[in-house]
Amino acid sequence: MDLFEVLHLDHLAHGLANLSMFPYFDMAHYVVSVMALREQPGALEVSRVSPLACWFSSMLFCFGGAVLSGIMLAEPPVAPLTNSSSVLLASVIWYLVFYCPMDLVYCCTALLPLRLVLSGMKEVTRTWKVLGGVTQAHSKYKDSLLVMIAIGWAKGAGGGLISNFEQLVRGVWKPETNELLRMSYPTKITLIGAVLFALQQTHYLPLQKHHLMLIYTIFTVINKSRMMLTGSTALPFAAIESAIYKTLFTGSSPYAALTGEAKKACIDKRTTNRTTSTAATKESSENGKAGKHTPDSSVKGQSESLRAKEESENTETTSCKKTN
Amino acid sequence: MDLFEVLHLDHLAHGLANLSMFPYFDMAHYVVSVMALREQPGALEVSRVSPLACWFSSMLFCFGGAVLSGIMLAEPPVAPLTNSSSVLLASVIWYLVFYCPMDLVYCCTALLPLRLVLSGMKEVTRTWKVLGGVTQAHSKYKDSLLVMIAIGWAKGAGGGLISNFEQLVRGVWKPETNELLRMSYPTKITLIGAVLFALQQTHYLPLQKHHLMLIYTIFTVINKSRMMLTGSTALPFAAIESAIYKTLFTGSSPYAALTGEAKKACIDKRTTNRTTSTAATKESSENGKAGKHTPDSSVKGQSESLRAKEESENTETTSCKKTN
Amino acid sequence: MDLFEVLHLDHLAHGLANLSMFPYFDMAHYVVSVMALREQPGALEVSRVSPLACWFSSMLFCFGGAVLSGIMLAEPPVAPLTNSSSVLLASVIWYLVFYCPMDLVYCCTALLPLRLVLSGMKEVTRTWKVLGGVTQAHSKYKDSLLVMIAIGWAKGAGGGLISNFEQLVRGVWKPETNELLRMSYPTKITLIGAVLFALQQTHYLPLQKHHLMLIYTIFTVINKSRMMLTGSTALPFAAIESAIYKTLFTGSSPYAALTGEAKKACIDKRTTNRTTSTAATKESSENGKAGKHTPDSSVKGQSESLRAKEESENTETTSCKKTN
Repeated sequence: MDLFEVLHLDHLAHGLANLSMFPYFDMAHYVVSVMALREQPGALEVSRVSPLACWFSSMLFCFGGAVLSGIMLAEPPVAPLTNSSSVLLASVIWYLVFYCPMDLVYCCTALLPLRLVLSGMKEVTRTWKVLGGVTQAHSKYKDSLLVMIAIGWAKGAGGGLISNFEQLVRGVWKPETNELLRMSYPTKITLIGAVLFALQQTHYLPLQKHHLMLIYTIFTVINKSRMMLTGSTALPFAAIESAIYKTLFTGSSPYAALTGEAKKACIDKRTTNRTTSTAATKESSENGKAGKHTPDSSVKGQSESLRAKEESENTETTSCKKTN
Repeated sequence: MDLFEVLHLDHLAHGLANLSMFPYFDMAHYVVSVMALREQPGALEVSRVSPLACWFSSMLFCFGGAVLSGIMLAEPPVAPLTNSSSVLLASVIWYLVFYCPMDLVYCCTALLPLRLVLSGMKEVTRTWKVLGGVTQAHSKYKDSLLVMIAIGWAKGAGGGLISNFEQLVRGVWKPETNELLRMSYPTKITLIGAVLFALQQTHYLPLQKHHLMLIYTIFTVINKSRMMLTGSTALPFAAIESAIYKTLFTGSSPYAALTGEAKKACIDKRTTNRTTSTAATKESSENGKAGKHTPDSSVKGQSESLRAKEESENTETTSCKKTN
Repeated sequence: MDLFEVLHLDHLAHGLANLSMFPYFDMAHYVVSVMALREQPGALEVSRVSPLACWFSSMLFCFGGAVLSGIMLAEPPVAPLTNSSSVLLASVIWYLVFYCPMDLVYCCTALLPLRLVLSGMKEVTRTWKVLGGVTQAHSKYKDSLLVMIAIGWAKGAGGGLISNFEQLVRGVWKPETNELLRMSYPTKITLIGAVLFALQQTHYLPLQKHHLMLIYTIFTVINKSRMMLTGSTALPFAAIESAIYKTLFTGSSPYAALTGEAKKACIDKRTTNRTTSTAATKESSENGKAGKHTPDSSVKGQSESLRAKEESENTETTSCKKTN
């Protein structure tokens, strides 16, 4: 691609592509992941009640992508445990973040400047993970774009996608929220990355791999830093997103389209369904509720979890500045 | 088998056995499945809040059997995604059923005559799926009747068997109901089919494969049509079923058998257990409830879900007749 | 090892190592497992509502370890079904324990002396299962100690580790308790066994396999009998356990370490998180609860389930003495 030669970025791209993630970038990934876990509501209590559950949760935060993509490809989900050095490194970091005397480690890493660097480095690992997933899927299923995207996405955003089950390990169960119902920023950016790398892999995207890696990495790092500094969760492509959504999914939706009468009929139907369900499951009220929670409630539910996540990555630092 | 030659059904049987499911029968299967999803309580809201979750749910409805049997045989659950044409077809149908302008597609397909044809065709695909599962298991585990039945059942009724997790994708969680606790009609008929085909495969059933396919297909199609027309959910073999149940599981049940004293003792025991559990989990009330919900409640709970399903396949049409 | 020759235990160890688990020891394992299921709250109701769900639950109790380790190693979780004789034996026992006329079988096996013998034999099978898991993992992943421990643990204590999903089959859902959050005695002892056998396998532990088998088996059997006779759940290594816990996880915990101010800040943070979560999920109250249940509640919740289990193995017999 000429532009790269013009800007003399070819060397940079090659350098980046040959960068090794272990140990420094992996370490940053583990630190940020374990801190995100620690900042989940109730996580500190769990770390006291059962260090083992806490450790297992941390490993799911650190290696969730590998576990999920392993399951999806029918490869042993225990495989990540075979990489002793990584597991050891992650475990040490888990211990320091949760149990370090004077809580020094957490409060240092929670300082904005350091956290900014660590989060940036974590974003770099994202590129490698997505690419790894895409190539792994490509080697198994030559031409299946969908599988490449799915595996790349799973490998890059696994921790988020399996969050329901990671929470279950800690005794928390929030069925009304998951990353598919309302995607958080990391999940979205990873999905985009997976699509791009899959297109590059299948030569639909006229870019060299190391160039795409450079572009995607720079984009994610800059975007992440911007979000942490401004504390905003607005995405650069939010406009495109909502445009696509409006065109495809709302304009021609049943609600908008159906005549008032039909709409009424449909709503009546749903209401009756719900009534029966409430009647039937009156003993286990939460299900009736789960059954009939409205878009608003879901949105609320998820935006809450979203906010929690963002907090855990952005505004968290404040509480610890108080600490020192 | 003489009878077949006498009735000149041999040709018909062979013709049926050589029938290709793709694209028309598969299409019917996808349409009916996606409509069943759309008629689940809350599904329309989800289709507005998160098209992605809705799409994923639809794929689980359409390819649930392949996913489940894949997991059970340790084969990649993403495999169905490799069949691009099927996924594309299912996705198009998903889009049309949920987001078609004026909601035309849904309301046409929901008309009884068309729906009748589509459901009949879907029943035909059931035969192929069950047979596919049984032969797949047979090729891996030569003589294991149980595995053949399990895989055939999973492949034919997968969507229902994984419904708890399919609902979780949509943010709904109904732990007190599942297809094992109270089987819906499709699950039952699929189980019977799996048993028959497994017996045929292992030559315990003196029938040729294509003859059994013809008999089973005719039975399922006729039975399904009857149920849709009469709106009854009574099974032709309900009598046999309850007879077997009475003989094996109630007559000699602890309740009936135990002396009053013993029964009392057992009940006391359970009550105390529950009391502790209630005391212990007073913060999360739903578990206490789940812990002590009685048969009645379960029955109610499941019959409700059952009714919902049946509605979604039988009486649904009414609300849409209003529409047009 | 000299000591063994001195005590003439070498023959005994060899004899034990060559002992066959099938059918007698397996039978004992199935009986005790199915009885443990029957003594779960609500299990008897399920056995009436849906014998199939009850049977499936029993199989998970009997073969849970094989299923879990199968999933972890990406081997077919249906594999246990291929061993027809074992499945048949387990099914017969399931039927007799739940549906035997006059409930004879359950009430006989529930008598303390017989139950003592059966539980002892079940403990013997534990040694074989753990060892089987460790060797299986060793053959796949030569040097990975962690994987050996994980698989050995999963194979030996699978039924407990997957209890959340086993309960789901019966329509019960208790997210706030799991074996990782609060390990029951069998899970703990199995973990220790897995560690020991993994160390032996990798020659870090200077013991011959059959010697270790003898030592571990004797320890588990004696310990189990002691617990059943005294009704105490105190472990011989409880002291060591709490010492390790105190040294590693409490002394230097955030709570203890943080200054009052910091602690307050952290608590404030968590509280606000919770408030938002409660506000957001006000429609599905149980999640708010799950989100904010305190260590105490967890401890209660789990100690309850623990007690239930222990009851089911120790003090259960009383209620049935009344029976006869």
